[in-house]
Amino acid sequence: MDKKNESYKVKSFEYMMHPKSVAIIGASNNPDKVGHVILQNYLDVGYSGKLYPININANGSIMGLRSYKSVLDVKSDIDLAVVAIPAQLVPKALEECGRAKVKTTIIVSGGFAEVGEVDLQDKLLEIAKRYKFTILGPNCLGVMDPKSRVDTLFLPTYKIDRPRIGGVSFASQSGAVGSSVLDMIAHEGFGLSKFISYGNAIDLDEVDILDYLAKDKETKVIVFYMEGVKRGKDFIEVAKRATLEKPVIVIKGGTTEAGATAAHSHTASLAGNYEAYEAVFKQFGIIKAESLDDLLNFSKIFDTQPLAKGNRVAIITNGGGTGVLATDSLYNNNLVLPQLSKDSSTKLRAAMPPIVNIRLPLDMAGDADDKRFNVALDVIGNDPNVDAIMAIVLFQTPGADSRVAASIMHHGATINKPIVVVSPGGNYTQAHVNMMESSGIPVYTSPESAARALDALVKYSRYKLARGR
Amino acid sequence: MDKKNESYKVKSFEYMMHPKSVAIIGASNNPDKVGHVILQNYLDVGYSGKLYPININANGSIMGLRSYKSVLDVKSDIDLAVVAIPAQLVPKALEECGRAKVKTTIIVSGGFAEVGEVDLQDKLLEIAKRYKFTILGPNCLGVMDPKSRVDTLFLPTYKIDRPRIGGVSFASQSGAVGSSVLDMIAHEGFGLSKFISYGNAIDLDEVDILDYLAKDKETKVIVFYMEGVKRGKDFIEVAKRATLEKPVIVIKGGTTEAGATAAHSHTASLAGNYEAYEAVFKQFGIIKAESLDDLLNFSKIFDTQPLAKGNRVAIITNGGGTGVLATDSLYNNNLVLPQLSKDSSTKLRAAMPPIVNIRLPLDMAGDADDKRFNVALDVIGNDPNVDAIMAIVLFQTPGADSRVAASIMHHGATINKPIVVVSPGGNYTQAHVNMMESSGIPVYTSPESAARALDALVKYSRYKLARGR
Repeated sequence: MDKKNESYKVKSFEYMMHPKSVAIIGASNNPDKVGHVILQNYLDVGYSGKLYPININANGSIMGLRSYKSVLDVKSDIDLAVVAIPAQLVPKALEECGRAKVKTTIIVSGGFAEVGEVDLQDKLLEIAKRYKFTILGPNCLGVMDPKSRVDTLFLPTYKIDRPRIGGVSFASQSGAVGSSVLDMIAHEGFGLSKFISYGNAIDLDEVDILDYLAKDKETKVIVFYMEGVKRGKDFIEVAKRATLEKPVIVIKGGTTEAGATAAHSHTASLAGNYEAYEAVFKQFGIIKAESLDDLLNFSKIFDTQPLAKGNRVAIITNGGGTGVLATDSLYNNNLVLPQLSKDSSTKLRAAMPPIVNIRLPLDMAGDADDKRFNVALDVIGNDPNVDAIMAIVLFQTPGADSRVAASIMHHGATINKPIVVVSPGGNYTQAHVNMMESSGIPVYTSPESAARALDALVKYSRYKLARGR
Repeated sequence: MDKKNESYKVKSFEYMMHPKSVAIIGASNNPDKVGHVILQNYLDVGYSGKLYPININANGSIMGLRSYKSVLDVKSDIDLAVVAIPAQLVPKALEECGRAKVKTTIIVSGGFAEVGEVDLQDKLLEIAKRYKFTILGPNCLGVMDPKSRVDTLFLPTYKIDRPRIGGVSFASQSGAVGSSVLDMIAHEGFGLSKFISYGNAIDLDEVDILDYLAKDKETKVIVFYMEGVKRGKDFIEVAKRATLEKPVIVIKGGTTEAGATAAHSHTASLAGNYEAYEAVFKQFGIIKAESLDDLLNFSKIFDTQPLAKGNRVAIITNGGGTGVLATDSLYNNNLVLPQLSKDSSTKLRAAMPPIVNIRLPLDMAGDADDKRFNVALDVIGNDPNVDAIMAIVLFQTPGADSRVAASIMHHGATINKPIVVVSPGGNYTQAHVNMMESSGIPVYTSPESAARALDALVKYSRYKLARGR
């Protein structure tokens, strides 16, 4: 890879995420226009930089802001131009961006290679190379950064919830997968650092995005939806570095023959041989999500929990049957249930009522309250035989209330081992799930989902620890 | 099996679910008592039969009802006695039930074999046999029937949502699993016919419950959580008949060695060899749920959808990437993507805009509206090459709104093929998911969950069709 070029590409993402000035080419007073929705988003979230609405028919103001017929009329520095005009008008607009020394562009317009307009698409890249600026897209949703309040999505805010500020950065080749996952992230209650929808990826591609997110200090976890990688060797080179810094989770579309055919017809991606991808993922510590459920379930454990020293998981529960299912789920996911240390057993025996058997899974009975959870988490949190804790809290039972949730939150913040919670249920349960999630405890609706997430964490921990990180 | 005895046992469930009169032994004015909560539940849901609060210290009225010191004082027929008093007082109360010719009993009290009190537990069965009545429990939550408004759960209604009336009957050996699943069923929005928590199962056991639910006309789908089956041969005999009538879904606790050990310590169940269970399940058409997620996901497809004639699933979508993931999920779950018939292709080509490729998965593009969904569902619903439909509706996209949900609901009610919907998302999406679910469309948050449910439906359909049902 060309180092100088790479660092310029990384910098262009900085211009997208933290622009001092944004030109929106295609901004309009007409609420049906994509450019209107994008400008509205910037206004809605209170973006503090300069906004320049650009419209070839501009005549005075657009949405209360002074408008321009061309970026050339702005006469000030423009960090980012978001282009949302019909495909055939894009080359001319890009030429003007080049002449106006715009730092980087996001082309949300569709109508290029994905509908056979390959020549038109090639022209865009030629212009960008000539003027030395970068392109994200075309045919993409652009970017979102809840912290800097950049939001180029042309989907109305009432249709898609915006996540809070957090540590997960998500890049998606598919706008559909991107927007629905973004909506799910907001719904699940965990936080987003950056969202990047990269569409046809004629210039900035998955390699550049991975490079940028690996270097971005605010990104704790990198998540990708991809159908294929064109620059395989470069991707591996960047991934090798990235996975030593932070977890990289990938869900790949087109893992089956029929899926690969569908992917080809979707983004003209060569999905390639999944076994080859799997081998590369494993070798370089990339975490493979098998489904959108995995993607969300894995993201939140990596976002909030420390690495695990091993695969020994202590289950504590206020429901016996759920403890049995959880035990099965450990062994189905490469995890084991350890023996408690002698010291732990003695302490728990002294603190628990006689009906509680002191062994794992620790079934603290249906009347377990915050006192029992406190003791169990204190003792097991310090047990050298235990690498991680799965706490099953059934809020349907008489003893489980917000004090139990508080006990979990307290220990989640003080124990230096991964903790996950399993709490299936309705409204009363959900209220407590929200509390715990918002204080950084990953909560799952089933032992199986929690065990899959723990397995992913243990595998990545092992990869990193083996490399002295 | 003893036929006469069996039919008596089935009848005793009828007495539990549709009692003309219920005695609550341990009813109390003290809200901390289990008997108080149970009586309150009957009053809250507007139970229309006769209620007799029984308390050894009774003196006038309990919660506004005339109270009695013993069932012997009632002097009227009692169909059901719910027993919620300390373990050591239960034998005397049962003796009185026998003398008062109570038809059947539910013993919610704990403190028997599960804490080593085997002799005390044996005494209960001896009394029941002598007086020829039946026992559900002890150490159980009893039963719930939203239609007849019977509700013996001693868990407060604010902690656990009650499901609406529906076709799924759920029986659980574990009260913890039972109550959390019940809460999840209510939360997911599908309907319950009967809930039976059977605890220590000293008299009525999983064989009797299966027999009853198989014969119960209101039960469309039978769902079980079990850790072990004591009467294996009888269970197979009943299951063989039951699965020809209706789907039987089982989640088994203790499928791994460590899980089996945990199960033994939990309910003293011999969980047995899971491979043996799996073989029996397969041979007799029992649907195996691998997780609580499966259990819920499978329940709703069986509750609402017709059998499938084969495993050919058409995917229609308004998001390309999600269509790719869905295609992968079919092939990972024994399903296939068919070719559209020539007739279907012609009709779709005429109706869809040029950018839509006429092939499966049918990617109708991000601006697909109800008109496109209508055409696709009309045409594909009648395509002889298609056995089932997976409709992916991403409500984040501009064209997807409540008219698309209405189109799905309309076709769900008129097409005689299974339809499932995949709609991941936040608040806007959830509102539409609730609409569709309440009109009998099973909606999933990921293609993978939907494909697993379709696979279960296809497998059961094949089992039944092969036997001429």
